[in-house]
Amino acid sequence: MNPAFSCPLPKLDFSEIQLGHGSGGMLMQKLLEPVFGLFSHPALAEQHDGAIVSTAGRIAITTDSFVVSPLFFPGGDIGTLAVHGTVNDLAMCGARPRYLALGLILEEGLPIAELWKVLCSIRQAANDCSVAIVTGDTKVVERGKGDRIFLHTTGVGDLHPEAAISARRMEVGDRILLNGPVGDHGVAILSVREGLSFESAIESDTAPLHRTVLRLLDRFGTQIHFLRDATRGGVATVLAEAAQQGGKGIEVEEALIPVGEEVGSACELLGLDPLYVACEGRFVAVVAPEIAEEALLEIQQSGWPQAAAIGWVAGEHPGKTLLRSAIGGRRPLPLLPGEQLPRIC
Amino acid sequence: MNPAFSCPLPKLDFSEIQLGHGSGGMLMQKLLEPVFGLFSHPALAEQHDGAIVSTAGRIAITTDSFVVSPLFFPGGDIGTLAVHGTVNDLAMCGARPRYLALGLILEEGLPIAELWKVLCSIRQAANDCSVAIVTGDTKVVERGKGDRIFLHTTGVGDLHPEAAISARRMEVGDRILLNGPVGDHGVAILSVREGLSFESAIESDTAPLHRTVLRLLDRFGTQIHFLRDATRGGVATVLAEAAQQGGKGIEVEEALIPVGEEVGSACELLGLDPLYVACEGRFVAVVAPEIAEEALLEIQQSGWPQAAAIGWVAGEHPGKTLLRSAIGGRRPLPLLPGEQLPRIC
Repeated sequence: MNPAFSCPLPKLDFSEIQLGHGSGGMLMQKLLEPVFGLFSHPALAEQHDGAIVSTAGRIAITTDSFVVSPLFFPGGDIGTLAVHGTVNDLAMCGARPRYLALGLILEEGLPIAELWKVLCSIRQAANDCSVAIVTGDTKVVERGKGDRIFLHTTGVGDLHPEAAISARRMEVGDRILLNGPVGDHGVAILSVREGLSFESAIESDTAPLHRTVLRLLDRFGTQIHFLRDATRGGVATVLAEAAQQGGKGIEVEEALIPVGEEVGSACELLGLDPLYVACEGRFVAVVAPEIAEEALLEIQQSGWPQAAAIGWVAGEHPGKTLLRSAIGGRRPLPLLPGEQLPRIC
Repeated sequence: MNPAFSCPLPKLDFSEIQLGHGSGGMLMQKLLEPVFGLFSHPALAEQHDGAIVSTAGRIAITTDSFVVSPLFFPGGDIGTLAVHGTVNDLAMCGARPRYLALGLILEEGLPIAELWKVLCSIRQAANDCSVAIVTGDTKVVERGKGDRIFLHTTGVGDLHPEAAISARRMEVGDRILLNGPVGDHGVAILSVREGLSFESAIESDTAPLHRTVLRLLDRFGTQIHFLRDATRGGVATVLAEAAQQGGKGIEVEEALIPVGEEVGSACELLGLDPLYVACEGRFVAVVAPEIAEEALLEIQQSGWPQAAAIGWVAGEHPGKTLLRSAIGGRRPLPLLPGEQLPRIC
């Protein structure tokens, strides 16, 4: 948190969201005036129906809805999650995040203070990631037809000139790197939701990943074959999808996948497999074997000391991911079969 | 409706949305497979976290959430509304619509048939507008925490090389053009919601406007000073905003603003002012006086025979819009003061 950052609640003559705040009229303008101030950007100041911006020509576009419950949790809130999630999706495409569009669906009766807190988080996270909120939209639904705040963030980024990220570029022998321990986000959400407490609070791992990815692309270019952040469905689902989409086999070693001690115990207690628990600041990189060691070091040095090489692209079982246990057995890691934890993001 | 367009409901082993459809796992994949088929595009086929596309470099970005209730109404549904609304916002920026990102927030228990109907409308409208759905996201919330379907569409378009659209470019003497009668969308929604029936069904005016706008920009370039579609708050709110943002006075003649006969009677009956009722296929263009006549003809010939010149930018009362009545009186047209009709879009 930037200590210089202050975000005082604006003085308004209402303390809750009313249906009229979504009317497009005077009430909406009263609500949005301080918001435009918060996200000051020339495109927003124009108060047009959209923003006009410059890009590199080849761009990545990504969109995400956020319905996480609760809105606030250890390590973040729906606002940080939305910015990081969108920034990360752009990074996974091999793009430098530039612009965000922000949609709000607010429930009638929402305290303005709560909305403001989320907006301040969005501003803080956007500043930290050097992305600009350039356009937005606000809708209000009646009480009981929404759940306080839903966010939509759409990101636009300039494609890195060396980026060629696709599951189909994975080759037998490629190494699979992971930037840190898995499952923290899901367990943090669950612990608030279920009122569980652990010896020390487990915090969400929500974090922006673009700086690390851009360092990898600057240095190794097309030798970075595939990138994907491990959100819903956890690292297991991401690996299963990668194998499926690339038509290659993947093998990972259970013992090499970092899991925090607290998160491990919590998962045992809750009957969860940490490999299927959502993260919001973790990604896998599938890279050419000849640069794997240096790439891992690059990830570690860019703020992820616990990053690890966890597996490889195998010449067998195309389309499937297998997990090798400590005693040498292999079992399939399919996509998350049902529902594990709704409204995790 | 393209007669060749068919959109059969896919065979799935579930008939309702379940929480697991938002899990990021196997159930979600089962739901999304036919959706990817519906919107076939190379960027979607990649099944990445985002889409990589090419643009002109200077682009417009716009985002909108759609929470309209009911989902289906005479003349359209939430899907057509979302595509047209986003295409129109890009057009109003002076951009050629190219790409759409689609976010879905679905309520548990939503019939798949209903979702599919909306998705088919989205495909149909996107085809009609020559825009591609290139990326998307799906979330599911528990019963009672949403309202069947909320959509988010974000659009990206290439800025027209001659576009210079801004309320600040309005000049005294500029003419104000409107492409057709106002209020149909709002009255269509209200009539379904309240179970009203009129002599003939009033249909929403939802329609794409980009072709008309691009014709104007091709022919008149920077002499088109300002564009805005009259959605929430109606044509009155749009004019009030334009005056405010441009710091100029605006005057319009009540008798020149077209209102359909049925819509006029309905508004009288319901106590609504049609100038404040939402449209979804109407826009105002503020243009240089020397091209006003030709520009009006161009709008009329591009499919809007009822387009009319309704007023001008005045040298007095900066920041305010006045309405001149048939008998010569003038009264202010402020922003829509409160809430007229919630969840109109």
